[in-house]
Amino acid sequence: MLPVEFIQALHSLVPPERLYLDPVDCYAYAYDNSRKYFPPECVVFPLVTDDVVQLIRLCNQFKIPLTPRGRGTGTAGGCLAEQGGVMLSLERMTQIKAIDTPNRALVAEPGVLNETVQAAIRPHGFFWPPDPSSAAFSTIGGNLATSAGGPHAVKYGTTRDHVLGLTAVTGRGDVIRTGCYTTKGVVGYDLTRLLIGSEGTLAVITEITLKRRRYLLQSGLVAHYQDANSCAEAIVSIMKEPQGPSALEFLDSGSLDLVRARNPELLPNDSRAMLMIEVDGTEHEIREASAKLLAACQNPGLLQAMTVQNTADLWKARKTLSPLLRDIAPKKINEDIVVPVDKIPRLLAGLSALCQQYQIANVNFGHAGNGNIHVNLLIDPDNQNESERAYQCLDQIFDLVISLNGTLSGEHGIGSKAPYIGKELDEATLALMKQINRP
Amino acid sequence: MLPVEFIQALHSLVPPERLYLDPVDCYAYAYDNSRKYFPPECVVFPLVTDDVVQLIRLCNQFKIPLTPRGRGTGTAGGCLAEQGGVMLSLERMTQIKAIDTPNRALVAEPGVLNETVQAAIRPHGFFWPPDPSSAAFSTIGGNLATSAGGPHAVKYGTTRDHVLGLTAVTGRGDVIRTGCYTTKGVVGYDLTRLLIGSEGTLAVITEITLKRRRYLLQSGLVAHYQDANSCAEAIVSIMKEPQGPSALEFLDSGSLDLVRARNPELLPNDSRAMLMIEVDGTEHEIREASAKLLAACQNPGLLQAMTVQNTADLWKARKTLSPLLRDIAPKKINEDIVVPVDKIPRLLAGLSALCQQYQIANVNFGHAGNGNIHVNLLIDPDNQNESERAYQCLDQIFDLVISLNGTLSGEHGIGSKAPYIGKELDEATLALMKQINRP
Repeated sequence: MLPVEFIQALHSLVPPERLYLDPVDCYAYAYDNSRKYFPPECVVFPLVTDDVVQLIRLCNQFKIPLTPRGRGTGTAGGCLAEQGGVMLSLERMTQIKAIDTPNRALVAEPGVLNETVQAAIRPHGFFWPPDPSSAAFSTIGGNLATSAGGPHAVKYGTTRDHVLGLTAVTGRGDVIRTGCYTTKGVVGYDLTRLLIGSEGTLAVITEITLKRRRYLLQSGLVAHYQDANSCAEAIVSIMKEPQGPSALEFLDSGSLDLVRARNPELLPNDSRAMLMIEVDGTEHEIREASAKLLAACQNPGLLQAMTVQNTADLWKARKTLSPLLRDIAPKKINEDIVVPVDKIPRLLAGLSALCQQYQIANVNFGHAGNGNIHVNLLIDPDNQNESERAYQCLDQIFDLVISLNGTLSGEHGIGSKAPYIGKELDEATLALMKQINRP
Repeated sequence: MLPVEFIQALHSLVPPERLYLDPVDCYAYAYDNSRKYFPPECVVFPLVTDDVVQLIRLCNQFKIPLTPRGRGTGTAGGCLAEQGGVMLSLERMTQIKAIDTPNRALVAEPGVLNETVQAAIRPHGFFWPPDPSSAAFSTIGGNLATSAGGPHAVKYGTTRDHVLGLTAVTGRGDVIRTGCYTTKGVVGYDLTRLLIGSEGTLAVITEITLKRRRYLLQSGLVAHYQDANSCAEAIVSIMKEPQGPSALEFLDSGSLDLVRARNPELLPNDSRAMLMIEVDGTEHEIREASAKLLAACQNPGLLQAMTVQNTADLWKARKTLSPLLRDIAPKKINEDIVVPVDKIPRLLAGLSALCQQYQIANVNFGHAGNGNIHVNLLIDPDNQNESERAYQCLDQIFDLVISLNGTLSGEHGIGSKAPYIGKELDEATLALMKQINRP
């Protein structure tokens, strides 16, 4: 229960339409795409940086937990009010403050949607590379909080590679300005990237200066394989080519079965693993690159590889995989592991062996060019024993990933997976992070 | 004077050939390209991470200052032992530990030269984008310490955009491992980029995992202008083009006079400002890009713009500018300011006015596509009054840069310019950086 004095102070800080106190109103802010549920005791909607400053100072004064949140599309629970208290929803800070073409920049508030940014700069011939599946409804603030990736990260990197500077409010309620407005700058420590990916644990970002990239023509290829292993070998060959792809997505047989169930005409019957490959550039460059990458696809397990005229249906099918899996297994465990590209064959073999050992149904797909595989363990919520086996299996999967020199999360973030962090980070490194976080 | 017990402990830590105690031996470690001079009391050459750990712990025990150093090619004094004590020279940690083509990575110790990295990966079709003028003799550890840039930063970004992970030793003597071996990873705070550009003030980097980029064909263009202003306007037009250049270097009339004095045949007589433009890609793409950028060069002040078959001489001339300037003005003030690209016309006009007001000779050149201009104030060391005027002028130049939303250093680092840092960073932001640095 929030103290009465705190609620009174909140009322004097923001007008009633920017403060939810009724649990019914707060309900929609209790969950994200991790499907965990932690109701906040109130939701506050700031409009300007100073609103955030005042609110953080007030929370400090009353020792009330505060959780910043974009549009709640994350899958790791990073925006959930695990300890109750105040939910700080940045979704109403939606101004684009500058579209600056000569400086190849865009300045915006954190509540602007990723798709809105793309629409603002596409007419000038640019795009902003982070493209999570949620791009149409996730905020750029949330993209920064998790250093979101997406299919194009294989060529362009993730969010942290495309931000010039920030305005943010620290846990003490101080306004800081990080980075700069220019594309180069080395004055002081790189606080910009320290905040990107910190999942709201260090500061609340209230203004973002983005760096844009040139928008290029895109073209698609697909390759079908008789088994996952030959497909994994092709991933390694493709990534050895200096001319890499602009996207390289892997779908295993479980994923293909899901796509087939909805769109039987999209896939050949015998395909047990598929690569969706995108190249970008000028028309001429696309032709050259496509020939090279189609050659890299060749191996004895290849069924067919070809360019695709219209890739829209395939990409749509790829994007629906996550919701489709949710439909058949609402309590699926959805992981976001990464291994070095040349370890993908060993990862897939290991996943298969572990899931067999623990008798857990398993579907894998993801951003193969980064070695970033979304592992889905499908469990029946009413089967307690299955759920226990799944978590034992997951623990073993994480150990496998670390033994292959990989990482536990490529783009979703740690969120409520914090108990596993010690598998990846050694004590001294973790202690340093905690030291940076301490008030 | 170092305590006798400390020296004894040093002897038990490293063999004699890896410990300099004679002031004559230490002399070469007292300066860098800033030409400031701070002799260390000893120089230690570690070979492995544990040497660094033991040395840092020993220095802590005796409260002796320690300064890490690469090959001392920096221009800002960041590697100088301003408070004496131990110079930690990483120049003998020169192993390349892995050249990993499928994972597009290279693992190396900090003392490896930038050029050695390029030579190791070029045969596989890759390069590492940071390309400071000192690439042939600067270490990758030093490149990381300053987040070095260079001409190609306009397309590829600076050092911080091309590193996957680090091993480092903190000021407490703890070994930390930051980032990961994969091209994606969001587990914990981004300590990798916190260390990059921190100029050795947070930790000593002992192993680096680099991310490579595809090597592309390059082709050059030049454009000559009747004055700096029309040249600056062309820079803005070029950078508005989504298809930007892979390098865009500006030389003012003072720079051109220096080049002419050595190579009169290289430049037309009437040129008062020049752009060296590079585009990269496939042959076809280079043709398309060259046409677009040559069109963007057009304005009433243009004298001539053309493609250049052999750009080697021009690049060589550009690279010799800094040493040539040093010859004519050994105590020149060499700055590294940056402004947003569309503010370059105002910057150049302002520089000209200020240098006229303070009667200081001034030569400007640099990475125009990033708005990164190397400003050189040429002063006679024997003229005390001139030197004073120059520093007053510099103070005003810095204010001008900040008023144009720029930054005081694009790639050289802060080093001994720390007293100016408050011009750019506000109190809260600086306090946070100090908090991160405190032991």
